[in-house]
Amino acid sequence: MSAIKVSAYRWVPPFAQGLVRDLRVRWALEEAGLPYEQRLLDFRDKPEGYRKLQPFGQVPTFEDGALVLFESGAIVQHIAERSTALLAADPSARARTMSWMFAALNTVEPPVMFLVQIDLKFADDAAAMRMREGAVDAVKGRLEGVAAWLGERDYLEDRFTAGDLLMVTVLRFLRHTDLVVSIPALAAYVSRCEARPAFQKALAAQMATFADNAPASAA
Amino acid sequence: MSAIKVSAYRWVPPFAQGLVRDLRVRWALEEAGLPYEQRLLDFRDKPEGYRKLQPFGQVPTFEDGALVLFESGAIVQHIAERSTALLAADPSARARTMSWMFAALNTVEPPVMFLVQIDLKFADDAAAMRMREGAVDAVKGRLEGVAAWLGERDYLEDRFTAGDLLMVTVLRFLRHTDLVVSIPALAAYVSRCEARPAFQKALAAQMATFADNAPASAA
Repeated sequence: MSAIKVSAYRWVPPFAQGLVRDLRVRWALEEAGLPYEQRLLDFRDKPEGYRKLQPFGQVPTFEDGALVLFESGAIVQHIAERSTALLAADPSARARTMSWMFAALNTVEPPVMFLVQIDLKFADDAAAMRMREGAVDAVKGRLEGVAAWLGERDYLEDRFTAGDLLMVTVLRFLRHTDLVVSIPALAAYVSRCEARPAFQKALAAQMATFADNAPASAA
Repeated sequence: MSAIKVSAYRWVPPFAQGLVRDLRVRWALEEAGLPYEQRLLDFRDKPEGYRKLQPFGQVPTFEDGALVLFESGAIVQHIAERSTALLAADPSARARTMSWMFAALNTVEPPVMFLVQIDLKFADDAAAMRMREGAVDAVKGRLEGVAAWLGERDYLEDRFTAGDLLMVTVLRFLRHTDLVVSIPALAAYVSRCEARPAFQKALAAQMATFADNAPASAA
């Protein structure tokens, strides 16, 4: 029996812990009840040949026998297709879930990551801080789009799907700001999804790996 | 018989013509041989209620009877599932195509659009121009990843797929720079995909709409 292998970093600095994108895959695997092994990498020193598995040198990859996949969105989709925990069987509901998966990663994540990069790399640059205002407005526009859509709903569609899974992992990137918490319905949505046992297991697994492999200087 | 309806802008300024994301959907529909109608919108004045179809107010949307989809990536995938022109039947090949679709939209597009935004919005800001160097390096890293993967290949996998379709539409966003043309194998890959009759028809359809609806001041 071949086990699923997921690549992840052995350790990352605290600002990234709990956010690295293998979390998405771990969460999806937990929702689907599929066991997996980690393939741990050093984020500063990836093994020779890793780009044969992942053309951009990122994590995660997903290996299942001869099948090698990359991109957390595609891997979550692949897992979702094996489990009704993440994707309804009805074709229309399935297509709607795909809309939300791409919305999370192609409409909400880009302005979110732009803001995160300004905050991580340019926090001491006055001009970047002027750009930050526009970046914050762009993020707010997306968050308001999600919140307005949610309205009184518990999830983006009529049940938890892979679309919620990806959206929540994107919204988590904003934890260093008050942008999500200042929209109570959105904060409640994130908390609702994070309360799922599968999320808790996935997060614990990522954090345990970091704890086990923390460099002495970071202990 | 219900016709497929795709939302698109009636007109956009020249810098965006040929790049608006409904191009992806038009291209996929042409590859699949599916006819469609346009649902034209003013990009500055979207109709009341449009966010019920598209939570973020963007184009394109895709309507097919009662089914309403949004996000160009999800719509291309939905079309691809109806046609072997864009997606092989083999499940492993299909999953690989999904990896490339998400790579195009979640790994390559974000740094590309970051650079595009700097060039569009901050070209007269000295500090932004300092950030631009890092943005260019980030884009180069992604382009080199794609080019190294391609090697001697004609397409990302063993045939043209929806992954190539999305990747090429992302690479086209860089047409105001020499970043793609300075990597001959990548430029040849883009040209190879753009030479497809379905792409030519899709591009002509988007451009014809803009020509038909050009404001007097832009004529």
